[in-house]
Amino acid sequence: MMELDDSFQIKPIGYLLSSEDSSDDDNSDVKIVEVFPRFQAGLEGIEDFRTIWILFWLHNLPEETRSVLRVHAQGDRSKPLRGVFATHSPIRPNPIGISRVTLIRRDANRLLVRGLDAHLGTPVIDIKSGQRKNETS
Amino acid sequence: MMELDDSFQIKPIGYLLSSEDSSDDDNSDVKIVEVFPRFQAGLEGIEDFRTIWILFWLHNLPEETRSVLRVHAQGDRSKPLRGVFATHSPIRPNPIGISRVTLIRRDANRLLVRGLDAHLGTPVIDIKSGQRKNETS
Repeated sequence: MMELDDSFQIKPIGYLLSSEDSSDDDNSDVKIVEVFPRFQAGLEGIEDFRTIWILFWLHNLPEETRSVLRVHAQGDRSKPLRGVFATHSPIRPNPIGISRVTLIRRDANRLLVRGLDAHLGTPVIDIKSGQRKNETS
Repeated sequence: MMELDDSFQIKPIGYLLSSEDSSDDDNSDVKIVEVFPRFQAGLEGIEDFRTIWILFWLHNLPEETRSVLRVHAQGDRSKPLRGVFATHSPIRPNPIGISRVTLIRRDANRLLVRGLDAHLGTPVIDIKSGQRKNETS
């Protein structure tokens, strides 16, 4: 069985660019995920999907937030405290965010996506397939 | 901007017990997520949710699978190779699994869940809220 002091190392596979790097769409809801060139082969076939999952690492949070276990829902102090695992707060022991996004297009190692709730420069740690283009919701 | 050699450290928050540890349900689709006692406060309020997301670390894979970027879909060699990010294969640079499960019950630091596609003993690295009990699908 696992030891309590096990830990695992995550390496970013890419990061979130600004939509300003996109020449053909200035909609601020559109963002670009740039996968590092050495991981580009991992994107092959992703064009078949209408939605994909992006996992990212909330790297801008101070390390001490990782020991916080209760938060006010939506950061609203008038709301009662609630366990972080009963929320989507960025504050949590392992600050991983997940977001289901719409894949607009792939250009080589760049994915143009809509609906990614993360800040520019955020490291991306994984991408997974969502719904295929020919599936209905 | 991020350095290419950044890396982040993940600590397990718990792990997947066998359903045999559950005295009142022998359905093999039912599994128990045990959160380490020091993280128990993070579960407060999770009872309000009918579904939750479990993130886990596929700790049994050899380290070298982390450099594999193409896999046969569903592990079926008759199918064409496809980029790992266009799949849910456990083989990927950061072997994180995500699974949306039905929360049956919480007992202190244990969650009884249905639909978790992971092996016993798998380290759990995060839990996030899903759909509330009073929401319709």
